[in-house]
Amino acid sequence: MAYPAVILVQPQLGENIGKAARAMLNFNQREMRLVAPRDGWPNPAATPAASGADEILEQAAVFASTQEAVADCQLVFASTVRPRGMTKPVVTPRVAAQLMHEAHARGEKTAVLFGPERSGLNNDDVALADMVVTVPVNPEFGSLNLAQAVILLAYEYSQFDETIVADDVADPRGAKADKAMLEGLLGHMEQELEPRGFFRSEDRRDTQRRMLWALLQNAQMSEQEVQTWRGIVKALARTPRGAGEP
Amino acid sequence: MAYPAVILVQPQLGENIGKAARAMLNFNQREMRLVAPRDGWPNPAATPAASGADEILEQAAVFASTQEAVADCQLVFASTVRPRGMTKPVVTPRVAAQLMHEAHARGEKTAVLFGPERSGLNNDDVALADMVVTVPVNPEFGSLNLAQAVILLAYEYSQFDETIVADDVADPRGAKADKAMLEGLLGHMEQELEPRGFFRSEDRRDTQRRMLWALLQNAQMSEQEVQTWRGIVKALARTPRGAGEP
Repeated sequence: MAYPAVILVQPQLGENIGKAARAMLNFNQREMRLVAPRDGWPNPAATPAASGADEILEQAAVFASTQEAVADCQLVFASTVRPRGMTKPVVTPRVAAQLMHEAHARGEKTAVLFGPERSGLNNDDVALADMVVTVPVNPEFGSLNLAQAVILLAYEYSQFDETIVADDVADPRGAKADKAMLEGLLGHMEQELEPRGFFRSEDRRDTQRRMLWALLQNAQMSEQEVQTWRGIVKALARTPRGAGEP
Repeated sequence: MAYPAVILVQPQLGENIGKAARAMLNFNQREMRLVAPRDGWPNPAATPAASGADEILEQAAVFASTQEAVADCQLVFASTVRPRGMTKPVVTPRVAAQLMHEAHARGEKTAVLFGPERSGLNNDDVALADMVVTVPVNPEFGSLNLAQAVILLAYEYSQFDETIVADDVADPRGAKADKAMLEGLLGHMEQELEPRGFFRSEDRRDTQRRMLWALLQNAQMSEQEVQTWRGIVKALARTPRGAGEP
């Protein structure tokens, strides 16, 4: 059985990384990725807190950015409360579990992003996800710590009944593009848009870039579709025939 | 909506009691009961770990024995791995959640027992429960701590879809007896059995007593049925008419 990668973005305390590893292994999840852990890696505080889940820590992969950590993934969830000012689908852990099982049946790679203990995921991290997964807690006392969020999602994933995954979950559009392919398309678009004055000012560049990313991601493109889009961008960037002629 | 009581049996660290309170309040569970907490109660180490769930700690009820803590309950689960040498139904957290919702719809009181951090529930505590609830963890790495077990069960309870509880869940046998009524019947039986040589030796008394308790509990008796049984015991204990006559 395939499992999602658990991506801890800028985790602060080694102890919490260890507890997350322990939570994962309880439900047989083994792939931990760390994005820019605050106190570096390896972190000696992690091991005692892992209560024997050392193999998870030893095999944890470290990335400099969230973007690099999700590059090989086709379906990414951001574990957070409903984000303000962002139009992302928000699902429950149970629905997320089902969607990940279905993605794995198609041969896709999935991941769940968890933010730093104090602040949670920032908007740029959430933007890299396809969907938001939110544990429906008491609205007057939402206080899940990192390991608790990890264990609830891992538990739901483990609880999912494989037998209810439809036999044929192949997308008729073909293999879904991974994040790196989408970034490639975005980079290509930016490169062509830049000299054409698309980015109205340095101030607005980030906002516009996020908007473009959301546009690509929400399209849930296949690899073939990304290629097609790149062809379109390339074509659009050509000097039109007849330009400059009288 | 009604909620189960969370009963911590002989909890060791105040910190873990606080974490359990925090886990509970995330899913709106508020009734904590403590059985003989090792370091007494209140425990100043509990409050910081509760992260604001102080009301749970302030309202926690303390009992000297598990038996007293479950006395008013009709449906009790023991959270533990499958117990050896004990014939109890073992259910998943999801099934336990459904059974508790159904019990609440009948007006019954429910509870979940959690054992001491190091050792878990002992056989006598498990014997007081109607069923065992076991989180299906990785068989090669079962390492749930107290707060994690509490949060997974609280989460499942919160996830339960009320609409799938049948409209009429009343037991045709009438209101189910609580544990105190069953204890009353057991005490009555023991009192009558004792002088009749039922308990073959002091060594075997505990085993035989447990066997009797299981007998009563597995019958899932209604209040009326307990009364009927008491009448039967009373009648059986009478000197038969004609005894001693020629």
